[in-house]
Amino acid sequence: SLPLLVAILYKESMVWSFLVPLLIAALVGGGLMLLCKPQNRKIYARDGFVIVALAWVLVSLIGSIPFYMGGAVSSFVDAFFETVSGFTTTGASILTEIESLPRGILFWRSSTHWLGGMGILVLALALFPSIGERAQNLMAAESPGPTSEKLTSRISTSSKILYVIYMILTVLMVGALLCTGMNLYDSVVNTLATAGTGGFSVLNNSIAGYNNLAAEVVITVFTALFGINFTVFFMLITRQFTKAFRNTEFVVYLSVILISIGLVATNVYSIYQSFGQALRHASFNVVTVITTTGFSSTDFATWPQFSQLILVGLMIIGACAGSTGGGIKVSRMILLGKAVTREVRRMITPKRISVIKMNGKPIPESTITNTAVFGMLYFLIAVGAMLIISIDNFDFLTNTTSVISCLSNIGPALGSVAGPTGNYNAFSDLSKIVLSLCMIIGRLEIFPLVVLCYPAAWKGTVAKK
Amino acid sequence: SLPLLVAILYKESMVWSFLVPLLIAALVGGGLMLLCKPQNRKIYARDGFVIVALAWVLVSLIGSIPFYMGGAVSSFVDAFFETVSGFTTTGASILTEIESLPRGILFWRSSTHWLGGMGILVLALALFPSIGERAQNLMAAESPGPTSEKLTSRISTSSKILYVIYMILTVLMVGALLCTGMNLYDSVVNTLATAGTGGFSVLNNSIAGYNNLAAEVVITVFTALFGINFTVFFMLITRQFTKAFRNTEFVVYLSVILISIGLVATNVYSIYQSFGQALRHASFNVVTVITTTGFSSTDFATWPQFSQLILVGLMIIGACAGSTGGGIKVSRMILLGKAVTREVRRMITPKRISVIKMNGKPIPESTITNTAVFGMLYFLIAVGAMLIISIDNFDFLTNTTSVISCLSNIGPALGSVAGPTGNYNAFSDLSKIVLSLCMIIGRLEIFPLVVLCYPAAWKGTVAKK
Repeated sequence: SLPLLVAILYKESMVWSFLVPLLIAALVGGGLMLLCKPQNRKIYARDGFVIVALAWVLVSLIGSIPFYMGGAVSSFVDAFFETVSGFTTTGASILTEIESLPRGILFWRSSTHWLGGMGILVLALALFPSIGERAQNLMAAESPGPTSEKLTSRISTSSKILYVIYMILTVLMVGALLCTGMNLYDSVVNTLATAGTGGFSVLNNSIAGYNNLAAEVVITVFTALFGINFTVFFMLITRQFTKAFRNTEFVVYLSVILISIGLVATNVYSIYQSFGQALRHASFNVVTVITTTGFSSTDFATWPQFSQLILVGLMIIGACAGSTGGGIKVSRMILLGKAVTREVRRMITPKRISVIKMNGKPIPESTITNTAVFGMLYFLIAVGAMLIISIDNFDFLTNTTSVISCLSNIGPALGSVAGPTGNYNAFSDLSKIVLSLCMIIGRLEIFPLVVLCYPAAWKGTVAKK
Repeated sequence: SLPLLVAILYKESMVWSFLVPLLIAALVGGGLMLLCKPQNRKIYARDGFVIVALAWVLVSLIGSIPFYMGGAVSSFVDAFFETVSGFTTTGASILTEIESLPRGILFWRSSTHWLGGMGILVLALALFPSIGERAQNLMAAESPGPTSEKLTSRISTSSKILYVIYMILTVLMVGALLCTGMNLYDSVVNTLATAGTGGFSVLNNSIAGYNNLAAEVVITVFTALFGINFTVFFMLITRQFTKAFRNTEFVVYLSVILISIGLVATNVYSIYQSFGQALRHASFNVVTVITTTGFSSTDFATWPQFSQLILVGLMIIGACAGSTGGGIKVSRMILLGKAVTREVRRMITPKRISVIKMNGKPIPESTITNTAVFGMLYFLIAVGAMLIISIDNFDFLTNTTSVISCLSNIGPALGSVAGPTGNYNAFSDLSKIVLSLCMIIGRLEIFPLVVLCYPAAWKGTVAKK
């Protein structure tokens, strides 16, 4: 992993060269998995975990130097938090005054989102198949069998396709924002933050600061698009329309968004002057939260409890698998729902044997177990982090939602501190480090960092060298 | 189920005759399961679910008449809430002024706890084996194979043993409380509430009102005892000491209590004058919360966030299986923890096949799946209930902990409304009904009421008659 380290060091010198080492990092991780013999593939995947997890921490450590050296942030912990927040496409900030910062720093801050989003798209391809053939079922793609030969060709071609889609959507969004009268710099910066479902903005009041309805509509629509599984776009491009619109995750994702908007809009109707305003803010915030972007158009911490709880629920659900968004993921939720339904049915008619299907294909039992364990680890890590954060003695809502927000890579939380109009600066250094780790754990889909905690994973890595 | 109905109607006329119909209700439920042929047993268990769930609602409906007719409670929904809270041994109250109520009503209020606790001990025996051989592994007892013949003898003898232990502990506790200088009436009433891990007291300030350190110590110790799996007492009586002290659930239960007391005492040290006081309140409240009793010795809603979060965690964990306590149960938590550890290990060394063991015995995979589904349903129901409760627009802490408190059958919650010094009166009727349902769902271990929601369960019942 020497080239990786060199690449990481090289990365720092130029902003745009971030793309190259990120690709290298992902490819080294992926490459290690592919270089091994098929029968030993899983053993090596473990090393992929270790390398990817360490790489993410290293990249963030080195990436935080510009913030610190540039003088934008005075504490190194704060700079690390901000960089992790960028690369993990979280968008949680410790900056209180954004508008006075140099444009270069802000541009770079938003591009970490875009690069992070790109890295995630490759990771999804490179890491998922390695988790014992489990998680790749979460990708609705026509994935080939998990044999090494096919994977080699698949990673290179698939990642190219994903990047092209990512680029096209980015360019389209910049164009659309320009049409709404936003200047080029702001259009590009906001697009970068949207594409990575990050949420860093260049105004203190985030998107609300523009007071531009058309721009809000554009951002809402594109945010929703970036939360969709990219293979759905691939299906649309290759004209598999029926397949795309029958994709379970896609349909559930859209339904959850529409139902949530309906409920929230009705609930916040009394706050805003008109139903139009209620619908505008409900749409923007439901979409920004479920896609784990985290822009803000209004202070949803002042909304009624019912709407706030819906947002907390959306925070936990997250976006679709195979998108740049975070969270537990819609497809995992669907799987868990199906598993629960099956178990209850089994109690009534125990003799019926049923296989859980998704998009018409049977899902192996190991995937279901893996998903259940994922859900449990999510809550376990969340509770542990909440306990540490709670030493700062902020309110319960702040503690719970800050952790969920970081773990799901959203950005804003609820409560008195880190709401849409607040930031994470008030937390102690310990809390900031814990929250930074939560962002990385959430971004890497929990398992790589959990595996790191097992001595057995280290032994294997050391022994091989 | 005509005799059940008659028994329920009869119940209302005399306080002490509550014992008889509760036993009948449990026995009818159990009887139905036993009367069938072995090969069809599981199909009939479904009917057991339906009957038990309906019986609990009916008993509570009829049991609430005395509160309503006696004039103690002016609204029927409130009376229903109070009765459900009693029978499910929750101890959540809508009464604002307790001391002025007639002694008869208060005595009856506390005895619903004791009777509810008794009902639960039978249900644990009668219901658990029927869930497809799954949950009975949660009982650490030397359970015979789940064939009908053995069950018949087991239910009758086992329930007798459990009742004898329950009675002995009750008598011992009354005696101990009398020794602390508490009068007979208060001793008995508080014992009844402790035995059922209920939490209804006769003073407005609960146990804090006595300001009697010795009594607090006695209540703390006996509360902890009533939260232990009763089969551990059976082992102790039959002198299987090593077996009892190597019982995983028992050991983990004690460890969790001791660690929590240590953490909370250190955390609340700054609030109280001395470490002794901190330890006193930490012990009392940790024990009362994990056993899901819910007495109060101090207002833990004013404690630092760290301690409050620990209490929320204990609320969710709950007491041991096979006790009168509620919650998810310590043994389920152990199982889930072991399952998560195994899955993570599998990722590192995928070829190793491992069986999860508890107390040295292998646990079937179906039990693990069942436990995972239980945990997911717990959270699913909690989130659903929170959403409905949130319409009342109380704070987030109130919404979340009230639901957890009712679902785990504890009583007091955290937050501005239903804390140890507050009560549930401020909630709307809708919320009170939802919380009442949560108490019943939690008390019957979720599955019976979930099964009720499936049309297939009803079809079977109707078709058979």
